[in-house]
Formats: sequence, C-alpha cells, structure tokens
Amino acid sequence: MTSADPAPKRTAGTVRVVGSGLLGASIGLGLRAQGVDVVLDDVSPAARDLAVDYGAGRAAAKGDDPRLIVVCVPPDVTAQVVERELRSYPEALVTDVASVKVAPLRELERRGADVSRYIGSHPMAGRERGGPLSARADLFIGRPWVVAGHDGISYRAAAALEDLILDLGATPVEMTPESHDAGVAVVSHTPQVVASLMAARLRDAPDASLGLAGQGVRDVTRIAASDPGLWVQILGANASTVVEVLRDLRTDLDRVIDALEAPTEPGALRAIAESIGAGNAGVARLPGKHGQSKTFRQVVVLVDDTPGQLGLLLTEMGEIGVNLEDLRLEHSPGAQFGLAEVSVVPEHEERLIEELVRRGWNVAAADH
Amino acid sequence: MTSADPAPKRTAGTVRVVGSGLLGASIGLGLRAQGVDVVLDDVSPAARDLAVDYGAGRAAAKGDDPRLIVVCVPPDVTAQVVERELRSYPEALVTDVASVKVAPLRELERRGADVSRYIGSHPMAGRERGGPLSARADLFIGRPWVVAGHDGISYRAAAALEDLILDLGATPVEMTPESHDAGVAVVSHTPQVVASLMAARLRDAPDASLGLAGQGVRDVTRIAASDPGLWVQILGANASTVVEVLRDLRTDLDRVIDALEAPTEPGALRAIAESIGAGNAGVARLPGKHGQSKTFRQVVVLVDDTPGQLGLLLTEMGEIGVNLEDLRLEHSPGAQFGLAEVSVVPEHEERLIEELVRRGWNVAAADH
Repeated sequence: MTSADPAPKRTAGTVRVVGSGLLGASIGLGLRAQGVDVVLDDVSPAARDLAVDYGAGRAAAKGDDPRLIVVCVPPDVTAQVVERELRSYPEALVTDVASVKVAPLRELERRGADVSRYIGSHPMAGRERGGPLSARADLFIGRPWVVAGHDGISYRAAAALEDLILDLGATPVEMTPESHDAGVAVVSHTPQVVASLMAARLRDAPDASLGLAGQGVRDVTRIAASDPGLWVQILGANASTVVEVLRDLRTDLDRVIDALEAPTEPGALRAIAESIGAGNAGVARLPGKHGQSKTFRQVVVLVDDTPGQLGLLLTEMGEIGVNLEDLRLEHSPGAQFGLAEVSVVPEHEERLIEELVRRGWNVAAADH
Repeated sequence: MTSADPAPKRTAGTVRVVGSGLLGASIGLGLRAQGVDVVLDDVSPAARDLAVDYGAGRAAAKGDDPRLIVVCVPPDVTAQVVERELRSYPEALVTDVASVKVAPLRELERRGADVSRYIGSHPMAGRERGGPLSARADLFIGRPWVVAGHDGISYRAAAALEDLILDLGATPVEMTPESHDAGVAVVSHTPQVVASLMAARLRDAPDASLGLAGQGVRDVTRIAASDPGLWVQILGANASTVVEVLRDLRTDLDRVIDALEAPTEPGALRAIAESIGAGNAGVARLPGKHGQSKTFRQVVVLVDDTPGQLGLLLTEMGEIGVNLEDLRLEHSPGAQFGLAEVSVVPEHEERLIEELVRRGWNVAAADH
C-alpha cells in the first residue's frame, strides 16, 4: 500500500529501551519489525509488560548485555536516568529522545557522567501525547531525527545511533545541542506558547463570537489542546532560549498595541503594516512539502459531506493527472457539505479547474 | 455533484453592487445565477468591465433604479461610499460588507447620513484576498453572514438584506455592530496579529531551525501570509476592540516570560501550566463541524503521495461506512508518501482501524 519499504537492518546487538510510553514502545516495535533484539524497562512494571504484550520487545532481565540504550522518559528525569544507565552498563552507548538537548547534557556533565558514551537525540515524530497504546512501528518513517553530538563524543556512539535511526526509517539530522534547542524554541516551543495564549482569549468569549470562528482561528489554536504537564517540562528545560524569542515577540506586540491605541498618530499604520509584512516574510521561509519552498495554488471544490464524495474527487484528480500537494477540508456550519481546498502546482491550476468543471464539480473559489 | 441546491429567488427589483473585487463580483455572479437584475459600478471602469465580462451583472447607467445597494469597497472608504449611495438613490436601501461594523455606522451618523436606510453586514466568506478573477457564484453558500442592525433601522431594510443573503445561499446571523466587532476581534483580528507576530520570528531563524518545522508551526502561521494593506485597514477600523484583547494577551505573555526567566522560583511552573491549561479550555470552546462541539478521534494512515491513493483510502472509508469528520495531510520531508490524519466519531475508531488494517493499509498511529 505504500512505497515506504524499510531499509535493511543495520543495528547490531541488543537495544535496551528505558521507558515504554509512545516513543519507547514505538522504537521497540520498529526495531522488532527489523528483527533487532529489544529489551524493555520502565519504572512501572505494568507499563513495561503492556509494551511487551504489544510486541515492542522482551522484559529486561539480569544478564542483558545491550550495546545501545535509548532513554525515553520525561524531560525532567532524562539526565538522571541516562546517568544511571551509563553507570549500570559501562560498555553501552546511551542516547535519549527528550525534546530539549542542552539541559540534559549540562546536567550529565555536572554529575560527572561519562558523556563520551552519551549522545543526545530527538525524533521529530509528531504527537507529543499518547501512551504505549498509540505506539506504532512506523511512527518515525520519513521524519527528521536530530542527532545532537558534542565535543566529547566517541565516533562509535554516533555511528550506532545513526544505524538505529535509519533502521526506524527516519532521517538523521546532525545539529549541536545549542542549535537544536534554538531551532525547537522557534519552530515548536514558541508556537505552542503563542497558540495557548491566543486560545485562552476564547475561554470567556460569548458564544455568538465563537460562532463567527473560521478556519484561521482554528489553525492558529489547534496545538493549544496539548498537555500542560508535558509542556511545563519542555518549556522549563528550554526556558532561557524560549524566553529570548518571547521577549522579541513582546517587543513587536507592544509596537502593535501602541499603534492600535493611537491609530491616527503618525507612523501607527506603518507599524501595523510592518508587523503583518514581517509575518509574510517569516511564513514564506517555511520549507514546503519534500523540503521544497514552493508556492502552490489553491482550488476550492464544493463536496458532499461524505468520504465517498471526497474520494471520488481525489480519484478524478488522479485521472486528470494532477498531483495533490496538500488538502484541507472546511466544513460549512449547518450545511451537509464542505469545501475541499486542494493545493496544486501553478502550472496545473487552470487545467484542473477546467477538467473539474467539465466533470460537473462545483469549483467554489480559486484562492490567489 | 452537491446537495447545495440554491433556495428560490427572493430578492425583488434591481441590486446595485458598488466595488467589483472578490466580494462584489461574487455577489453579482451569485445573484445573476438566481436571475436577479444586477448593475455593477466601480471607481475603476476597467475593473467594472472585467466583472461584467465575467457575467457578474451589467454596467451601471443613468436611470438605474436599484432597490438595494451593496457597497463592497475597502473598509477605509466604506462610510464615504455608503453616504454617497444613500444620497444618490434616496429610495434605495444600502448595505456594506466591510469586516468591521461600528466604525462605518458611527462615521455615517457623524456625517448626518440617513441611516434608517442603511444596515451594515459582513459575510464570513473565507479568503480576505483575491480580485474579480477569484470570484465565484457560490462563495457564500453555507457561510454565516452577519446582519448588524441598529436602533434606527427600518424593518424594510433588514428584510431586503435577509432576502439577498438567502438568495446567495448564506445563513443570516443577527448581531449588534458592537457584538460583531467584539466577535471578529477575538476570532479573526487577534488570531491574525498573533500569527503574524509568530511568523515574524521565523524571518531571521537559521535554515537548520526551519528544517525542524512540523505541522504545528505551519498551522499557527498559515494566515500570516495575508495582505498587509488590507489588515492595516481592518485593524485600524477595529483598533479599540482589538487592543483590549491584545492587552489581555500581553498580560498572560508577561506572566509566561516572568516564569521562564526564573523557572525554579516558586509558582513559575504553575504559571506555565495555567497558561497552557487556559489554552486547552479556550480551544475546546470552538464549535466543531456543523456547529457541534464534539471531540473526534484521529486515525493516521500512511499513503503514497498520489491523489489516487488518498482517493482510494476515502472511497474505502465510504465502503466501511465510516463518516469522515475532518482530514489533514502531513508530508514527510524527503519521502514520497504522506500521512493522512482522518477524524472520526469515537464510536467508529476501532472498527475503522480494524477494517483498514485488514485491507492492507498502514495505520501509522492513532492519536489519543
């Protein structure tokens, strides 16, 4: 059903996975699917046994001799668990998957751990929620997986980690811990704060206001549904980097507030235009599908509110020979149909509209 | 191809549309499709003639006797044009479609216009960009269209406007100008500012940071691509209402910044948790599809990067008999396949996963 055939197995020896939540159990399942020997451990024996039942590996036991250990525990206990693993398995290489990379390394150095056998990493695999029941062997396929090396690291540790990443179908991306943390501060941690602060404004808004909500506010606030407990840890562990970005944002926000408090003052409208313009420039830098940063054209088609109707549209797009670059659905409140916004390369836009109209589709609006 | 059959024609007499951009031309096309007589005017004769060529109505001429006039010009000239129309056609009712409603009414009152014949309105029809070439007769179908009445309005004006809205397939929503402006401040204008301020952070970020961007930051910043010129007008015209929301947001932002500047101080982590928690509560209030505020379950399926493959998935969902409530596509950078996240009602989740797996689909991760 998919072209995502796993690469041949590279990981040698036994892999020990500590922590059997979504990431740990998914790593176990993915490695097992490659025939790699996996032992699982967890502070909760019940959680570990559940992951074992799901086929993510066998339960850890005395005499295990892992070559590589993957620590998949919450950020606030990552360094402590990594240190324990380094000490318990003096021959093994240890990595972790926490979403911050400077803080755990600094804490390990402070604790005097043997960091030559430790190399931090971070799989950029979607959902920051869910336990072992959500685990899937292919959670990492096609995702970037940051390898955050440091000066004291052995070549052997880096190579073993890269093998594991490739076996899981992910793409290794080398970064320093500092550049990783700066990167996630701007593309993950700050967007989370901003989405949450915006969504908080909806909490006490009248129902009538919320009834006017369109796709824009839904998109801006979607990730505001994230788990507060996890985000306290992530933001706390990357606090000094995130706060720099937030201070810059506050400076810009103050400028907009000043302008809106006195919109007829000289320079006020220009300040607003510059803020929106800076946003234009920023969003244009996000890489597109497959790393392209290409602009697509959006064609909006009215469809019945059934999966069959949307399926037919996409099947006919295939027949027309136009590639779908992206797809969004919008539902019309109170109506039994929706709008499908399909993104295509500009060269295909005209032909697609012509062909869809000829086949009887209701092309609602082309968005330019 | 769709169940969205237009209602029978209700609008009586000639409708004059002033301004032939996306909204004006779409109104003209929609009314013409109902057989309503439409005359078009525009400060630019070329723009008017283009809309006429597209079939949005006939060119305005001496002797026109419109019963209803729809002013579709930029917000900053709306009141001025409405006043001129009220004076030029002393028997006609006048409405406008500007995205703010208090400022035009106040300005008309200040100018001493006959506001008993004026009733403001605002179609919540998507895209705030695009000219007459993007116009479509069905732009408004199924969308809310706010009717912002005021004390001095005649019943006749309100009824004529409602007929026009129904003829265009939209749903009239009655609000005061003040509650409309408060509503769009919180669900449209503030999200725009927030998205732009966030996107501005990406402008000078290193390429390596942007390479880590996932779906979250893309969603938060999507509307940051909007037109600065238009937003200067919208934000300027609703300044005092938007600035109140932004001041509340700044208070919360300051609290997060204070907490991240000293995350080990007592109360710091709690402040962060409360900010994320307030966002949880806010986003949960957004009405769902068809006005429901129901929680759906997300099932993630690995699909080849072709429209045919996605079409097949949706067709098979139809065969399985599971309704699609929402659909998102995520592309894996560098890979020739993507992840389709389909939302279904919780009762259907288990059966859908079972059936898809049985049919050979790669169900990548169920998101709980």
